[in-house]
Amino acid sequence: MKLIVTKENLKKGLFAVSRVVGSGNPLQVLNNILIKTDQGRVKFSATNLEIGVNTWVGGKTEKEGALTVPARLINEYVNNLPTEKVTLEGTEGNTLKLDSENYHTNIKGLPAEDFPLIPQVTEEPFAKIDASEFKDALAETIWASSNNETQPEISGIFMAFEDEKIRIAATDRYRLAERTATLKTAARVVKEVIVPSRTVSELYKILSVGAGEVEIYFSESQVLFKFDDTELISRLIDGQYPDYRQIIPKEFKTEVEVEREEFIHALKAAALFVPDSNNITVEVKAAGITVSASSMAAGENTTQIKAKVSGSDNSAVFNFRYLLDCLNNLSEAIVKFKMINDASPASLAPLKRDNYVYIVMPIKL
Amino acid sequence: MKLIVTKENLKKGLFAVSRVVGSGNPLQVLNNILIKTDQGRVKFSATNLEIGVNTWVGGKTEKEGALTVPARLINEYVNNLPTEKVTLEGTEGNTLKLDSENYHTNIKGLPAEDFPLIPQVTEEPFAKIDASEFKDALAETIWASSNNETQPEISGIFMAFEDEKIRIAATDRYRLAERTATLKTAARVVKEVIVPSRTVSELYKILSVGAGEVEIYFSESQVLFKFDDTELISRLIDGQYPDYRQIIPKEFKTEVEVEREEFIHALKAAALFVPDSNNITVEVKAAGITVSASSMAAGENTTQIKAKVSGSDNSAVFNFRYLLDCLNNLSEAIVKFKMINDASPASLAPLKRDNYVYIVMPIKL
Repeated sequence: MKLIVTKENLKKGLFAVSRVVGSGNPLQVLNNILIKTDQGRVKFSATNLEIGVNTWVGGKTEKEGALTVPARLINEYVNNLPTEKVTLEGTEGNTLKLDSENYHTNIKGLPAEDFPLIPQVTEEPFAKIDASEFKDALAETIWASSNNETQPEISGIFMAFEDEKIRIAATDRYRLAERTATLKTAARVVKEVIVPSRTVSELYKILSVGAGEVEIYFSESQVLFKFDDTELISRLIDGQYPDYRQIIPKEFKTEVEVEREEFIHALKAAALFVPDSNNITVEVKAAGITVSASSMAAGENTTQIKAKVSGSDNSAVFNFRYLLDCLNNLSEAIVKFKMINDASPASLAPLKRDNYVYIVMPIKL
Repeated sequence: MKLIVTKENLKKGLFAVSRVVGSGNPLQVLNNILIKTDQGRVKFSATNLEIGVNTWVGGKTEKEGALTVPARLINEYVNNLPTEKVTLEGTEGNTLKLDSENYHTNIKGLPAEDFPLIPQVTEEPFAKIDASEFKDALAETIWASSNNETQPEISGIFMAFEDEKIRIAATDRYRLAERTATLKTAARVVKEVIVPSRTVSELYKILSVGAGEVEIYFSESQVLFKFDDTELISRLIDGQYPDYRQIIPKEFKTEVEVEREEFIHALKAAALFVPDSNNITVEVKAAGITVSASSMAAGENTTQIKAKVSGSDNSAVFNFRYLLDCLNNLSEAIVKFKMINDASPASLAPLKRDNYVYIVMPIKL
């Protein structure tokens, strides 16, 4: 292998794949990035066996070939390099020779043949979606999934393709976030999948670099997201996602329109006074919301927020983190908070948008 | 105690003293900040028994008094507060009541009497120095002191006051940084002290907030630095500072004028290839400097830097961190690097400034 690439392209290629690489994996090749000449471009690949990423950048191929090198070392080396162009050459003993003006370096690598095969998905795209729309939908949902690996199906993110819509949901059984977004080309059949959280987090980061269109492909047990010059391939989670729609209440007793920032400040102030629990009290009366918390050790805090209230007075205890997670990830100035009673789900949503719902269970003391 | 203070002043006062406060100290009062009305202003104090900090901000006293509250809690509370003015009131059970518009809070505290006395230094200032000059001098020296607590005298920073000059030095016996600065009023007598590193680091941070003049006071075993509305009081380290001036070579065999940034890039590139040691080779020939390093595991790197060389060819092995520490803390574009041989001290200094010298020992392999 011998190729010439600009430092910017080299950095871009390495950066796009590096997040999935481990650093202390006992299987050394999993700490490495595969660099390969590919039809006049340079292909970078990385995998942690659950997720694989491929990306392509421009470069001048002088001799075809492939080699793997430690991700951390080559990233740090290239980030420090003050020069503009780099010649990469595979040499004896699986060593990558990097020459750039007055900088001459050999990085010990491993043969490309040792690198795990990242499966190819060759079908037609199943669906297409605008990258920015997809990113926004993920931002409002993916943090609501469960960290509990003993319940694999809710540790992932649910995606349901139904005609021209994608419905994205995440839950840990105590709260639920659901967002609907519009596809650019309708899905060919109705399809429901569970994508690992880590894959979706990585997808979110990949979508953050620019605008465009995401193509979504499926094989039997895998999904591929293609955006720009980058492919993200992941296994799907096997299992039945809970039929969460039945727990979304149809009617509430109390509806409040409240400034999102004010609600956040009040929750954060109260949170400081419950160092040993996450339990804060939210009380709604005609004048607005009162958020309060107290503990023997720290003291107590009460904040009153003016708000537009309709329906009956109400009060419940919530995990403040569950409320903040949602409020912090919305962008609208005013949100709608709805309650039934101290033992039934409450809901949060932007005031004027009907493609999103967040449901949170109160804490029973 | 009852007083009214703007949130900005409250934040400023808390911020100025909070860095010296611990958070898990078993003696609870050492995790607290003392808030006290003082002649129409509000005084904030904190101490870790080695260093004490006092600062004063404007505020309206309604009732004299004092109280201590946990530093972390009040800082986080005030930082989150979206309002402009806060009323602080001492109430029953050593509780601090904070009222600010719709935010009502009680923070559990401890009586002011439990707070350790921070010694007062009441003499005339021993010396005065421009804050920005002092800060620059500290920036170029203080990182060179020893972390080894078994050698307490070199774990601190040496300050010698001689007429209109202050000489600041730090060493760990393998390297030495010395900077001379001009006093605004000459010291009344020659005086040499060793100030704990942590005190000097804190002083550096205090000086970073603005311009002005620093007053330096001494009592028998303590130093007080006064800047703006803040006082920093610290014990001095007892002991004899090594007579380091004797190890500064009078003459060198090789002198190199090199671009500081280029030298930094070359050292950082080499550093990546010695994961198990810090040893890189610096070789000087007529054309310039060659920096190189290699290891079995990672590979090897060689960087050539053009430089203006006079004197003989030379080569030595250095701890790259010792060279980077100095280069990163200078600001000039060109530095002068001087060597004798592979077993004698080398030196680094800005090209056109004679108030600074840095000496570093090569590594004997």
